[in-house]
Amino acid sequence: MKNLKLAAMEDATRTVVNVAGVEVGNDLVVIAGPCSVESEEQTLATARAVKAAGADMLRGGAFKPRTSPYSFQGLGLRGLKILEQARQETGLPIVTEVIDPRDVSWVAEFADVLQIGTRNMQNFALLKEVGQAKKPVLLKRGMYSTLEEWLNCAEYILSEGNPDVILCERGIRTFESYTRNTLDLSAVPAIKELTHLPIIIDPTHSTGRLSLIGPMSLAAVAAGADGLIIEVHNNPAAALCDADQALTPDTFSEDMRKIRALKQFFETL
Amino acid sequence: MKNLKLAAMEDATRTVVNVAGVEVGNDLVVIAGPCSVESEEQTLATARAVKAAGADMLRGGAFKPRTSPYSFQGLGLRGLKILEQARQETGLPIVTEVIDPRDVSWVAEFADVLQIGTRNMQNFALLKEVGQAKKPVLLKRGMYSTLEEWLNCAEYILSEGNPDVILCERGIRTFESYTRNTLDLSAVPAIKELTHLPIIIDPTHSTGRLSLIGPMSLAAVAAGADGLIIEVHNNPAAALCDADQALTPDTFSEDMRKIRALKQFFETL
Amino acid sequence: MKNLKLAAMEDATRTVVNVAGVEVGNDLVVIAGPCSVESEEQTLATARAVKAAGADMLRGGAFKPRTSPYSFQGLGLRGLKILEQARQETGLPIVTEVIDPRDVSWVAEFADVLQIGTRNMQNFALLKEVGQAKKPVLLKRGMYSTLEEWLNCAEYILSEGNPDVILCERGIRTFESYTRNTLDLSAVPAIKELTHLPIIIDPTHSTGRLSLIGPMSLAAVAAGADGLIIEVHNNPAAALCDADQALTPDTFSEDMRKIRALKQFFETL
Amino acid sequence: MKNLKLAAMEDATRTVVNVAGVEVGNDLVVIAGPCSVESEEQTLATARAVKAAGADMLRGGAFKPRTSPYSFQGLGLRGLKILEQARQETGLPIVTEVIDPRDVSWVAEFADVLQIGTRNMQNFALLKEVGQAKKPVLLKRGMYSTLEEWLNCAEYILSEGNPDVILCERGIRTFESYTRNTLDLSAVPAIKELTHLPIIIDPTHSTGRLSLIGPMSLAAVAAGADGLIIEVHNNPAAALCDADQALTPDTFSEDMRKIRALKQFFETL
Repeated sequence: MKNLKLAAMEDATRTVVNVAGVEVGNDLVVIAGPCSVESEEQTLATARAVKAAGADMLRGGAFKPRTSPYSFQGLGLRGLKILEQARQETGLPIVTEVIDPRDVSWVAEFADVLQIGTRNMQNFALLKEVGQAKKPVLLKRGMYSTLEEWLNCAEYILSEGNPDVILCERGIRTFESYTRNTLDLSAVPAIKELTHLPIIIDPTHSTGRLSLIGPMSLAAVAAGADGLIIEVHNNPAAALCDADQALTPDTFSEDMRKIRALKQFFETL
Repeated sequence: MKNLKLAAMEDATRTVVNVAGVEVGNDLVVIAGPCSVESEEQTLATARAVKAAGADMLRGGAFKPRTSPYSFQGLGLRGLKILEQARQETGLPIVTEVIDPRDVSWVAEFADVLQIGTRNMQNFALLKEVGQAKKPVLLKRGMYSTLEEWLNCAEYILSEGNPDVILCERGIRTFESYTRNTLDLSAVPAIKELTHLPIIIDPTHSTGRLSLIGPMSLAAVAAGADGLIIEVHNNPAAALCDADQALTPDTFSEDMRKIRALKQFFETL
Repeated sequence: MKNLKLAAMEDATRTVVNVAGVEVGNDLVVIAGPCSVESEEQTLATARAVKAAGADMLRGGAFKPRTSPYSFQGLGLRGLKILEQARQETGLPIVTEVIDPRDVSWVAEFADVLQIGTRNMQNFALLKEVGQAKKPVLLKRGMYSTLEEWLNCAEYILSEGNPDVILCERGIRTFESYTRNTLDLSAVPAIKELTHLPIIIDPTHSTGRLSLIGPMSLAAVAAGADGLIIEVHNNPAAALCDADQALTPDTFSEDMRKIRALKQFFETL
Repeated sequence: MKNLKLAAMEDATRTVVNVAGVEVGNDLVVIAGPCSVESEEQTLATARAVKAAGADMLRGGAFKPRTSPYSFQGLGLRGLKILEQARQETGLPIVTEVIDPRDVSWVAEFADVLQIGTRNMQNFALLKEVGQAKKPVLLKRGMYSTLEEWLNCAEYILSEGNPDVILCERGIRTFESYTRNTLDLSAVPAIKELTHLPIIIDPTHSTGRLSLIGPMSLAAVAAGADGLIIEVHNNPAAALCDADQALTPDTFSEDMRKIRALKQFFETL
């Protein structure tokens, strides 16, 4: 694939990104949590629930890139402190989004993994900045971007000196409107042949429908994904964003049982 | 979903399409065979190979809808006679495409399942004609079509009196060019909640890449698909169409082992 | 462009399609009329109005390809007879769609131009049939189709012996939902460099919005289109299809004035 | 359109953005110049040429958002100083892209208009920063973005206190590959009914083909656009980026003659 040096598969060995002991690229890693950090109570309750269900990391947004300037934009520093509390209590590493290059260095003090969202995939100033951070980066695919463009964005991060990039397919934009986006699961084996970096799947933002999250999680595992990132909320009806697509802890727990069993099956296949 | 009467899920019981004893919608059904019928030798060799590997039906085109008028257009009647021979020898039911409403009645004498290709999904004259045939119909999704449009095409067939429609997702057209089309696997659980008709997946035409067919077949099973339709050729390098994407019998056989094992796992989950 | 022989520009001279004296490819041709023929009164009233406004041909569907089998499917033969009446009274040549290869020969008795709709662009049985008809063909671009695929469909018609093909860009399917489809106006100069066939624009179905039809008609002329096909209805509110996007005779008349003036301007540029 | 307050048309009067005397939204404004500032000689030569041809402003990138980290990234401050020289010599106001929120305040010292590129349309940190700058903003449409999302990005800028936003349609991403992107010209009248902000067209990046730039420029004027932004290079063959799509000064000059004449025609229509 054109221009790829550090990210290209070729003779490389597969990258395993170690996040506080969780090995992305080795284990099947499940990241779960709310769309945004709304309060201490909501975040801790959700963190405890996903921990109990067997999640490996906690996700939660303190900075939210929202279509409208008048929508809830996240709690910022206060949100990061709540996430820190959640880590202390549950031991779950924290995945959180960063949207401004000026925030990278101090957000990296709170986060275990820095997330680059789909709208910022080609925000090159931000990519260069996380490329100089000492924390792993979760790089979401632009909803409009080809595999080649996506891998070139990983190359931006790698070429700045940060080898710990986790790719995340989260759906691409098509004409179909039944789902929020179209989950491109064939990206999993395609990425595996193009790069040594691990790839996880976001069944929540891609489908935008509760009923499709479970089946797409299982399909992702079957396709060979290294993990999943799933929105879970302790009380979805009250969520400040993505209320329609957050799993309840109970549904998540039942999905986790199947996901783990399926992974085990594949180890014996 | 707007305008759906006969195809809508609602209180319906799930349709099982019986094709010479193969129950689509009940069993996990694998349809395999060459893109087009090229010769007696090629078709029979492939038929024997896919039978040995455990396929349930044989696919093969006698009428080929080709982008250019100067490309091989299929053997027509001679191709159908070769398919009949293959059925006699192997016992596999035959799935073959029909592209002209004037051909439906006599092609139905040879076929066990009449296939409507992606380019003809909204060929309403053809849909009405297969709606009056006494054979099951495999209705591929238009590469440009929404779930709603697709189900309305099934409604065209059902409303003419033919209840035996099998849906087939074969990839939609997007901006991504690494794959031939983008396989929309979320269509599987989506279709299951919208209609009682069975749905199978075509991992060959959707991905257009040999290396992605195996992983996408497994992902389709995990997503809940009722079956697969896969291109296999006894000698892919010599194929008159789709030479780049036909599996060899050996690869297909190995994929079948995994597909069957995965299905069995899901029955116990 | 791959596989093109008869349709390719290269050393060819530009095709002028003569329709009862109207020279498509030479003059700026405006085709106007209702989505479907609903009644004698509606069709004649509309025909008179578009004639008075300066239209060159009358469009009107007797066979309607509708998404749902339960929508109005057109008046068939009765519709064609009404169109014939309209031609007799106004002198306007008739453009009407054909959707079934079995209908081509007799519909050609009534039509001056046979229209192939967007859903049938790759209905190869139909293309071959109109390729043998003695009437010009208006070939709409598939809403999902590349320029290359479209020109290959023209090649299907030309290679059967019919040299009189008029191309029609009518919008392609994208993620944007403010408009019904996305009008690809750059197709006009692109087609002009790839083929000698004339190309017209459908501002109605592409935009699906009354307010955009006028500006897009002018833009089409400026881009170099050979003509326009516009939906006009004597009483849009009562239309059986596309009620939201048919111009009134008054608006059409005002648009015609500007379209003709713009064309004149370009002749002096 | 949802959530729009300051950007919505409704009862607003149309915004005219005054850039050093050039009135965007009133006059037909043509912005021309090279993709990137490469050297003093190249920039000054091009600036003189576009000035002579009648351009109203000079474009040129000092910071280039490139797909690959190994491509030419722009001259940065040195490029801005060259642009300043070009302004001094020709009197043309300068349009230049900013890609990092940390650069906004000092780039604004050199630029007359701050450009936000397609990949940064939803870079909200950057939008907020230019919203606080004292310079007009040229906001390109995301190649994947709906009109609604685009206008909400304008709202981000307006709501920070900067009223001077110029929208720029530059093509959206579709399946068609003959053109680089698909120019959505219907966005011009659509935007005019949704917002009071001016809108210009980029025929260069949308089509990516020299032969289409002229016709699409004229079509844009006919559709009602407030201006054009066109790539011109004094020696396209030697350009460091977009060498295939930069007009020569001669071609640009000839296009300008037609563009101005067409605008004049419309004033009399």
